[in-house]
Amino acid sequence: MELTEKTLTRTDIFSGKVVSLHVDTVELPDGTTSIREVVEHVDGVAVLPLDEDNNVLTVTQYRYVFSKPMLELPAGKLDPGEDPRVGALRELAEETGAVPESLEALGSIVLSPGCFGETLHLFLARGLHMGQQHLDEGEFLNVERIPFDTLYRRILTGEVDDAKTVTAVLKTKLLLGL
Amino acid sequence: MELTEKTLTRTDIFSGKVVSLHVDTVELPDGTTSIREVVEHVDGVAVLPLDEDNNVLTVTQYRYVFSKPMLELPAGKLDPGEDPRVGALRELAEETGAVPESLEALGSIVLSPGCFGETLHLFLARGLHMGQQHLDEGEFLNVERIPFDTLYRRILTGEVDDAKTVTAVLKTKLLLGL
Repeated sequence: MELTEKTLTRTDIFSGKVVSLHVDTVELPDGTTSIREVVEHVDGVAVLPLDEDNNVLTVTQYRYVFSKPMLELPAGKLDPGEDPRVGALRELAEETGAVPESLEALGSIVLSPGCFGETLHLFLARGLHMGQQHLDEGEFLNVERIPFDTLYRRILTGEVDDAKTVTAVLKTKLLLGL
Repeated sequence: MELTEKTLTRTDIFSGKVVSLHVDTVELPDGTTSIREVVEHVDGVAVLPLDEDNNVLTVTQYRYVFSKPMLELPAGKLDPGEDPRVGALRELAEETGAVPESLEALGSIVLSPGCFGETLHLFLARGLHMGQQHLDEGEFLNVERIPFDTLYRRILTGEVDDAKTVTAVLKTKLLLGL
């Protein structure tokens, strides 16, 4: 079945610091029309920093959208034109102070392809050298070192449910056989 | 470190069919203020339908946000007040025609907790009985039966990158030892 949808009109609704929103009318494969609400978000990176004792450096920060602190991997938005590997090293250093000897790609994920345009690039960082954390202004987070197996078990129970964290931990589990 | 952020003001920007957007000012832990752009989206469900030969029923649909067809697990939005298990069975039947003998929870994921309020409930469906597909109006998708191991390999190469699909396949791989 031919599936392509063609843009007929576009209405820009909002352009903010983090997201922008436009609402388009589209022509569906059968010639009828429909509406597509599109949230654009710059692409991002997330890093699983694994030390030589198989501990993971995690960050816990308040997630206003869910009204609670959440435990996640170090992550952040790419600067305009920034290479994902460069952004991953930058965010890792900013949030945790860690500088790794190796950075391996764990692939990318799209988060909610029906309406949300963010792609996240995932990496595994090993051989960690600890330097100074340097957070952005207005950024508050707690860094913790958690055994890989403990983090994996918290994912299986659902206690840790952030998609980038879940994906990177499960891929690492399968690739390294941890 | 205390991490809580308090709402000071809220401005509603948009309320659509799929997403709504509001922009809030918040008080940070150090007493300074910041802006939070919040995209609300109703919660959803995704199902990994596994047949007795270890094939997965997948759906491929055009994802306008990314301007291409994407291969994903059957999924959809919950109706207001709908139990996730009921929603999962409904979406599975609508998109593929399959009715399973068992439905096991694979936990939930949040997709982009910095700005996007969707939680997705994941399930594994087994013992598939095939009935009639009944798509929503304006819904176009191709259903395919793919060996579990092929889907797993496409995830490792990055060819399949939808977060719900990646998470459900990797959890199933680890839980069932497939």
